[in-house]
This record gives sequence, C-alpha cells and structure tokens, in this order.
Amino acid sequence: MTGLFITLEGGDGSGKSTQMGALTEWLQGHDRTVVQAREPGGTDLGLELREIVLHRRGHIAPRAEALLYAADRAHHVATVVRPALERGDIVIQDRYLDSSVAYQGAGRVLDPDEVRDLSLWATEGLLPHLTVLLDLDPAVGRERLDASRTRYDRLEAEEAAFHERVRNAYLALAAAEPERFLVLDATRPVDELQAGIRDRVSALLD
Amino acid sequence: MTGLFITLEGGDGSGKSTQMGALTEWLQGHDRTVVQAREPGGTDLGLELREIVLHRRGHIAPRAEALLYAADRAHHVATVVRPALERGDIVIQDRYLDSSVAYQGAGRVLDPDEVRDLSLWATEGLLPHLTVLLDLDPAVGRERLDASRTRYDRLEAEEAAFHERVRNAYLALAAAEPERFLVLDATRPVDELQAGIRDRVSALLD
Repeated sequence: MTGLFITLEGGDGSGKSTQMGALTEWLQGHDRTVVQAREPGGTDLGLELREIVLHRRGHIAPRAEALLYAADRAHHVATVVRPALERGDIVIQDRYLDSSVAYQGAGRVLDPDEVRDLSLWATEGLLPHLTVLLDLDPAVGRERLDASRTRYDRLEAEEAAFHERVRNAYLALAAAEPERFLVLDATRPVDELQAGIRDRVSALLD
Repeated sequence: MTGLFITLEGGDGSGKSTQMGALTEWLQGHDRTVVQAREPGGTDLGLELREIVLHRRGHIAPRAEALLYAADRAHHVATVVRPALERGDIVIQDRYLDSSVAYQGAGRVLDPDEVRDLSLWATEGLLPHLTVLLDLDPAVGRERLDASRTRYDRLEAEEAAFHERVRNAYLALAAAEPERFLVLDATRPVDELQAGIRDRVSALLD
C-alpha cells in the first residue's frame, strides 16, 4: 500500500468539512490525487445504512447500531479506501473508527475496546496514517450548528452530557496514540488550523 | 431466563417451516405460549436489512454482509427473543447463528470461528437450548424449491458446490455440539421428523 490515509475526527460543528476541503485543494495543487470519503454513507450501500442509523424512527438496540456502522465501514474500506490506497492516492475521510469508539463505546453502553475490535475486524485492521482531532467544547459546536444546519438527526438530538462524554473519549484516544493523532483546538482560526495540518501531512509525504 | 429457545437449521427446501408449524401447533395444544421467529427479518429493522442482504443489486463485501446479519440478530435478540424467554415463552426460530457460521464462514471467505464470535457478541452469548438440523442433499432441496418457490434470492442463486459446503459445515457444527443439536434426515416423512423433534422438546420441558 503506497497511499496515505488521513481521517478527521471531532464533534459536529468542529470544522471537519472545512479543513477537509482546504487540505484537498492544497494537495491537488501539488498534483496529488485525493479521494474524499465519509462514514457512514461512503458507498451506495452505506447511504442506505446511514439512512437507517441516523434517520429511522424507533429504537435500535445498541449492539445492532454498532454492527450497522461496522458493516458500512467494512464495505466502504473494501470497495473505496483500500483500492484508492493501493493506487497510491491520498484518502481524506470525515470520521472513521475513532468516531465509533467515541460515540458508541464511551457515549453509549458498549465496551470501547470491543467496539474498536469490531471496527478492526470489519476493516481487516486498517488504521489511518494520521488522524486530525478537531477538539471543541460541545456547546460551541452546538451554537455553530444552530446557525447553519437544516436537518436534525438522531445523534445531534442527544443531550449535552453525551457530547461531553464523546469529547473526553476522543481526547483519551488521542492520548493513547500520540503518533497517529494531531489534536488541534478547533476554536483557532481556520487558516491556522489548516497550516498545522499541512505541516504534519508534509512530513508524512516526505 | 425461564423460557425455551429452539432453532431450526438446514438448507432451503429442507422443511424447516413445515416442522416449525407442526411443533408450534403441538406446543400450543399443550397450553404453551410460542413465539415464532426468523432471521434475517424478525423485526421491522430486520426486514429492511433482509431486503438489503438478500435482494439488493450489486456486490456486498463479505465482512459487511456478515456484519449486517449480525446487526439484524443483535436487534432481534434484544427486542424479541430475550423478552419472550424472560416471560417464559417458547421461541422457535427459523435460522440462527449456525446459519451464519455455515453460510458466511464455511461457504464464503471468512473464518468460521470469527463469524461465530461476531454472533455471540451481537447476542451477548445467547445459544439455543435445542437446534434441529434438517439435513438434506442440496440437490434434493433444490428440486423441492423449483416446485414451489416464486422468488429467487441471492443466496439461492449461488452454485451447487456452495450449498454442498454449507451442508458439510452444518454437519461439522452438529458434531461439535452433540448435546445442543438434533440431526434429522430431512428425506424422512414429515410426521416421523416431527415425532423425533417432539421427543426431544418433551425431554427439555420436563
């Protein structure tokens, strides 16, 4: 595998899409082929599963929800991410296994290590070369979303305490794997954040 | 848990539905409350997943398929099977984890032990008290289906060799857990098969 796999993590409203767009533009300007990806919903199958997980009415058992995310991931990695990396492309992905661990594991009732193992089984052990965590107080993320978002999904409807637990789970994951993670304060200016990300990506490309 | 969990396994055309119906009638005649269940598709969520797994056009990555079956199972066990068993009901289910192991594990490219572990994680370790395996030469099952079936699904479309591997995988599972399995020759008359099943169920109820 000769490509580079970069993931963006953080709560809703932390600026992942903005940073992804700017990084993509910069890399393309340096003649790199970039594949933008996201989960859930990075494939046609994934879109159907995303609809079920995020917008379906009624309770979904916690293990079923974790397994649906893992199914989406398995299909996406097998059909999109791995083929791109094998071509030597750079894959930049909005959310990956750290989202599952932070949201499902720490946020819900499941064991975080088991959720991580599930994702690793689904992906045959594929970990990113770099994971950018855009760390943000959930209250600030909420304000940003209120200003811009039209659709309101199941996860966003969860209470503030849940998002605080997610944030802490993310920080714990980053502390456990400092070489893979780049943790940035998402309240910093967009350009400053992007410069920090480019520095790290440049080092990986050299 | 005070109820009884009985599963029926075997290839398509082996007579699972017929035996399930007769066993249900007999148990109800003895004033037992019976819950008939099936996978995939035992819940509303499961029906959506069943549609995706069985009838969707296009390739599904093997691990994604296994995870979708596991998601269906997790939701079904949490919301249907366990509550029924806790009420003391008898749950009779058409296919359960042995199907996943036989079809996904032995039939496809996945490790059977990993597929089994996935199901056990999904269900928090729920194993049936009794599993009836209706063993049948796949060629005979195919003839029975051709005579009666209108809809043709993805799994049925797989080649004969696949069904032969499934049959052998089932027999290996039964040999590994002789106390849980009752293996019957599905070419025997319906009434004779039913009598064998009732004998075993009677012993479990005593």
